[in-house]
Amino acid sequence: MVGSEAPNDQFTFGLWTVGWQGRDPFGEATRPAVDVVESVHQLAELGAHGITFHDDDLIPFDASTGERDKQVARLRDALDATGLVVPMMTTNLFTHPVFKDGGFTSNDRSVRRFAIRKVLRNLDLAAEFGAQTYVFWGGREGAEYDGAKDVHAALDRYREAIDLLAGYVKEKGYGIRFAIEPKPNEPRGDILLPTVGHALAFIKELEHGDIVGVNPEVGHEQMAGLNFAGGIAQAMWAGKLFHIDLNGQRGIKYDQDLVFGHGDLLNAFFLVNLLEGGTGAPAYTGPRHFDYKPSRTEDMGGVWASAAANMKTYRLLRDRAAAYRADPEVQAALAVAGVAGLAEPTLAPGETLAALRLDRTTFEDFDPDVAGARGYGFVHLNQLALEHVLGAR
Amino acid sequence: MVGSEAPNDQFTFGLWTVGWQGRDPFGEATRPAVDVVESVHQLAELGAHGITFHDDDLIPFDASTGERDKQVARLRDALDATGLVVPMMTTNLFTHPVFKDGGFTSNDRSVRRFAIRKVLRNLDLAAEFGAQTYVFWGGREGAEYDGAKDVHAALDRYREAIDLLAGYVKEKGYGIRFAIEPKPNEPRGDILLPTVGHALAFIKELEHGDIVGVNPEVGHEQMAGLNFAGGIAQAMWAGKLFHIDLNGQRGIKYDQDLVFGHGDLLNAFFLVNLLEGGTGAPAYTGPRHFDYKPSRTEDMGGVWASAAANMKTYRLLRDRAAAYRADPEVQAALAVAGVAGLAEPTLAPGETLAALRLDRTTFEDFDPDVAGARGYGFVHLNQLALEHVLGAR
Amino acid sequence: MVGSEAPNDQFTFGLWTVGWQGRDPFGEATRPAVDVVESVHQLAELGAHGITFHDDDLIPFDASTGERDKQVARLRDALDATGLVVPMMTTNLFTHPVFKDGGFTSNDRSVRRFAIRKVLRNLDLAAEFGAQTYVFWGGREGAEYDGAKDVHAALDRYREAIDLLAGYVKEKGYGIRFAIEPKPNEPRGDILLPTVGHALAFIKELEHGDIVGVNPEVGHEQMAGLNFAGGIAQAMWAGKLFHIDLNGQRGIKYDQDLVFGHGDLLNAFFLVNLLEGGTGAPAYTGPRHFDYKPSRTEDMGGVWASAAANMKTYRLLRDRAAAYRADPEVQAALAVAGVAGLAEPTLAPGETLAALRLDRTTFEDFDPDVAGARGYGFVHLNQLALEHVLGAR
Amino acid sequence: MVGSEAPNDQFTFGLWTVGWQGRDPFGEATRPAVDVVESVHQLAELGAHGITFHDDDLIPFDASTGERDKQVARLRDALDATGLVVPMMTTNLFTHPVFKDGGFTSNDRSVRRFAIRKVLRNLDLAAEFGAQTYVFWGGREGAEYDGAKDVHAALDRYREAIDLLAGYVKEKGYGIRFAIEPKPNEPRGDILLPTVGHALAFIKELEHGDIVGVNPEVGHEQMAGLNFAGGIAQAMWAGKLFHIDLNGQRGIKYDQDLVFGHGDLLNAFFLVNLLEGGTGAPAYTGPRHFDYKPSRTEDMGGVWASAAANMKTYRLLRDRAAAYRADPEVQAALAVAGVAGLAEPTLAPGETLAALRLDRTTFEDFDPDVAGARGYGFVHLNQLALEHVLGAR
Repeated sequence: MVGSEAPNDQFTFGLWTVGWQGRDPFGEATRPAVDVVESVHQLAELGAHGITFHDDDLIPFDASTGERDKQVARLRDALDATGLVVPMMTTNLFTHPVFKDGGFTSNDRSVRRFAIRKVLRNLDLAAEFGAQTYVFWGGREGAEYDGAKDVHAALDRYREAIDLLAGYVKEKGYGIRFAIEPKPNEPRGDILLPTVGHALAFIKELEHGDIVGVNPEVGHEQMAGLNFAGGIAQAMWAGKLFHIDLNGQRGIKYDQDLVFGHGDLLNAFFLVNLLEGGTGAPAYTGPRHFDYKPSRTEDMGGVWASAAANMKTYRLLRDRAAAYRADPEVQAALAVAGVAGLAEPTLAPGETLAALRLDRTTFEDFDPDVAGARGYGFVHLNQLALEHVLGAR
Repeated sequence: MVGSEAPNDQFTFGLWTVGWQGRDPFGEATRPAVDVVESVHQLAELGAHGITFHDDDLIPFDASTGERDKQVARLRDALDATGLVVPMMTTNLFTHPVFKDGGFTSNDRSVRRFAIRKVLRNLDLAAEFGAQTYVFWGGREGAEYDGAKDVHAALDRYREAIDLLAGYVKEKGYGIRFAIEPKPNEPRGDILLPTVGHALAFIKELEHGDIVGVNPEVGHEQMAGLNFAGGIAQAMWAGKLFHIDLNGQRGIKYDQDLVFGHGDLLNAFFLVNLLEGGTGAPAYTGPRHFDYKPSRTEDMGGVWASAAANMKTYRLLRDRAAAYRADPEVQAALAVAGVAGLAEPTLAPGETLAALRLDRTTFEDFDPDVAGARGYGFVHLNQLALEHVLGAR
Repeated sequence: MVGSEAPNDQFTFGLWTVGWQGRDPFGEATRPAVDVVESVHQLAELGAHGITFHDDDLIPFDASTGERDKQVARLRDALDATGLVVPMMTTNLFTHPVFKDGGFTSNDRSVRRFAIRKVLRNLDLAAEFGAQTYVFWGGREGAEYDGAKDVHAALDRYREAIDLLAGYVKEKGYGIRFAIEPKPNEPRGDILLPTVGHALAFIKELEHGDIVGVNPEVGHEQMAGLNFAGGIAQAMWAGKLFHIDLNGQRGIKYDQDLVFGHGDLLNAFFLVNLLEGGTGAPAYTGPRHFDYKPSRTEDMGGVWASAAANMKTYRLLRDRAAAYRADPEVQAALAVAGVAGLAEPTLAPGETLAALRLDRTTFEDFDPDVAGARGYGFVHLNQLALEHVLGAR
Repeated sequence: MVGSEAPNDQFTFGLWTVGWQGRDPFGEATRPAVDVVESVHQLAELGAHGITFHDDDLIPFDASTGERDKQVARLRDALDATGLVVPMMTTNLFTHPVFKDGGFTSNDRSVRRFAIRKVLRNLDLAAEFGAQTYVFWGGREGAEYDGAKDVHAALDRYREAIDLLAGYVKEKGYGIRFAIEPKPNEPRGDILLPTVGHALAFIKELEHGDIVGVNPEVGHEQMAGLNFAGGIAQAMWAGKLFHIDLNGQRGIKYDQDLVFGHGDLLNAFFLVNLLEGGTGAPAYTGPRHFDYKPSRTEDMGGVWASAAANMKTYRLLRDRAAAYRADPEVQAALAVAGVAGLAEPTLAPGETLAALRLDRTTFEDFDPDVAGARGYGFVHLNQLALEHVLGAR
């Protein structure tokens, strides 16, 4: 049995994912470099909808204009040949030593200026490729030591950079929206905007915050022990889930970037249910973007198998979530648990606080012991979910 | 040598801190109940500036109006006798079984209505006691299981409640500001608004967000592995650090509520430096509020000793931070590290993005390899800080 | 579809699990006390094999001899009526304030002596009930502060106590084996013997270590971010898995004690596969003991439903594991991954190190680049496991 | 003020520490390669006692015999010129792709055989350099996926390898002892022998365990949230602390390898107190080995400054610990806390369990409520330690 396919799957992959050569802090590359054209063709064959990339994934950091144009043309051809699209692009502001103290928030002003220029050039390219979303992962914006970074000034500079670039995009009429990708640490000891919450709060301080949202990644939130589905729900509630990075992580440790579902499977199930509109809130309509790393132990055959695994798991979880929602016993358990009741405002339509104070049933005549004895049946509800995940109902 | 005292210390303590009897998930109380009047007198003698409390700390949950009035009068007298103030108050929406699925976001609407009523009554009391800040710790607002709580609806209800109550405070002209206290988990598996960032983002969605800020607690952020000083800096940057809970935590585990400094000492040093205005950003001017628990192994003598320890450690760290800032070698290291340089805008005054693009020194003629070779000397700077912490310079 | 039942299920429950009233660090009890006789009957009806208990679960801490005898008789009758057995018993050395600094390793010698006496009396009772295993969870053996406990002396005292008690059991011919239950923290800041590894190492220093093994708990190892199935495998390898506590935990945080499977589901799958002998190593033959807490939000109906959920999930995972092992595609993937090959000794039968040094194919003529290019297909293998967990193959 | 020097400081550094070029999972090298001869001279000048290295630190993985001999001679000369020694050596079984699934426990038997050969050759070199300790860090021995590694078989192979190599060392009469270095994860998802406890337990299963101990690293234990000083105490109690890796780590996250003390400063203080014999147990007499990484933001000047910082911090903490122990107020607090009393056996000299049972003061006439009311004063004691750390007493 295979997870059911849908025309609007919108599965996309970063070129850096299947292209990862397996270099880690303690080991050299275990796989050869993969040409981007091959990646596009392979992903197309596996049923992907599109690809995404950092500038340096396509064009070497110090490429000449000629090399740059050639690489762009090669990718363009591959996209045309396969029908794949580029819904998202981003900038590499972390690999080269110049960014060792950050890009937009480097203590070195010349680096900050260079970083903005690097993004600017790449925004033009993103527009050219028709990208709707431009991601900002500030992996080097941070510090190992609390005295090394003035966080107040750093947030000023971060805001300055994002507002400048967002203003540029508006001025050019590119129609691109920005998505900030939070991460708590690694490669810096502490990274600015460490969680979905911090990024959402930052966005509210921007001049051009209207076109800025978030791009949360499963593993990044879980590296802080946070509930990923919960964070996504808050981002959606704020109207700011502009993009998403799906992968797997096994708890609080280094960034693992496993295949989607190969971490906290139950949370992945509820995440898919949420993204697909299963909770009643509007569904997420953007790409299902996989930002994972094929393990260093795999050869190229394993790389393509791992890419396929992401999509298959998503489809299977989508099926399980649909069955869960359709199950009358689940519906009964949800009713006992009062889950839907939370959508009802606490005050009645037209009711004022003054009226509430006069309603003796809410306080004076309310028996908290009786209300406190109610059983919500949350464990039973969760067991039903688990059994649906197991395909056992 | 003792940390230097200052007239504006503003050290305050929750009545529930010294009053904690040592009941934990695996053990019974190890200390007798302490009368609030005794606590006020003892804390006054130790040099505290004020006390704070939950309604239920002073008045039993099911007290009659007469008992309530009597307790209020007893506290009033103790305050008058000692000169202590009540800068902050809060509501207990977590101890009674009625709140087992939350207060403002309980799946049970009658509970939500009761919770609002409970806060309303206590807001009047807060105004009576002259509190400037009212804290909301939503420890029960959350879930153990992802299917048990519709987070979208829950945030709607959370907003409804806070806005109703903030509107009430404005209408009454109480001059009270609200401070939301985030926590990632415990007692719920996942708590809504788990970090400073999530709370700041939530506040921006409120109608009355102008009078709502945050009350971060050292241990709560550290339970998510986040840098507490960093989170405080973002809250101050947003103008939302309305109150603070100081204590100690030793890493990602259950909520320890140790004495301030008895956890991550280096981060506590940089926190004090930040709060005292040592980074250049405006100092925090509110109370230094200790929200800790005297360990279960202590008798009442140990309780009062532990209360004093909080204040002494804060003073000592304040002295260390002042010496750190005054040290010429530190100033030289800060210059090498470029810490102050981050305050300089990335674009020059009047410079436009278009002008930046024409400045060839920023990109075309910029040598990233040279800039990448710069040594920031962050380790040396941190070592200087460590030696100041050790009192070794 | 229900997980297949087997006659040797050996599902057992602690009386304290279904009997937990929901008191937590921030809240009062949400459920009434349950009489042990009722628990026995309910669990029997649900299909449990036996029950386990701490002395204080059955007999109040300060009960008279008469009360004690009465309670023992009542349980005896309930067991006889239901056919349930008591394969394991344990001592409560943590609830009463006297144990606030530990039992066997309290800094107070009179407490240490009392603790040994309390266990001694209960060992006689365990023998009377026919328990084969006696568990030692030293939850209070530890400290919040590094200077408060001399760990060297503490381990001496721990060894002294366990050896004395083990000697007693041997002398009496009770046929009881001991099982130490590790936990990293909570209720103490750090607990002695924090992981399965530390406990196994400690056992090797005992005089009577032959009758002492471990009783690992899912959540306790996961609170340290450790792989539970991995720890169990090392305990089984050492011949020391004498008992096991099954439950669920969602990452590094306070001890959650969720229903088995309601945490890391994939690890639970591989755990069941291991316990059932699925890896080739001998199966675990002892009780499948559930040490969980029905969430505080549940009423008594929810309590019994949650108890049943533990057993159902175990059975379902057992079925999934059997199907996984029987799947030819899994077998092919295991072969590619070389999993079984690890059982082959690195040296050939009779081969010496000297002979290995002369075998040029192992070094001089070995091409590490060729061997390094091998793809292990671990991701594909894991995806097959995941699809079996999802019931999708 | 500088920490006092002592002739027996025995400060040693891995060549890979100061030689780390700053390559991380998201960034390229930021510093040039440092020649080993320069490192030796620089470390000598800073006052180091010796250096340590992996084979590949000195000799490229695929060097010819001639290159090998040349490098060995160059190091020999540098040591002779400076007087530095090589108390420890180790093998690199992790960088080359051939080790991507481990060395001794790779699923590929040819890799296992190659790994043993690689160590064998290097053991001869270690003997030649007069190393007393040979470290085994099995960073690649593990898995990302639970089905990918048969842990039972893996431990068999691990034991086979260590016993073969230990047998070789004995046979040759090298006088070298082995030290296993545990780590919970990174670069593998889960690493075999994840903590000090697991390694100690494993050693007990060896044939040649008498010459095998542990080499714990500060950050590695703290990556599992474990108390490092506590783990070291258990290793010393077992007589197995053969070597130690000192560095700094800020909580549960990726392996940071900061300068010693730049993480949990209070735990570092108590660790130094323990190593120096301050708790009463015998002092650790081996090298104080720093296994850290100069942050990627530093240039070579920063590298040498960071090396010096490790030694200075150790000396300062040693001074602070000595002052702590000598402080009469600390001694009084230790007495109240009963810390020394734990060294007294629980049973009196000659007392039997039978006698204990007859001593009514231990149970029948023992008043647990009175004993439970005792205040241990642990918070006060910890505050005194903190004030000594702050140099404030």
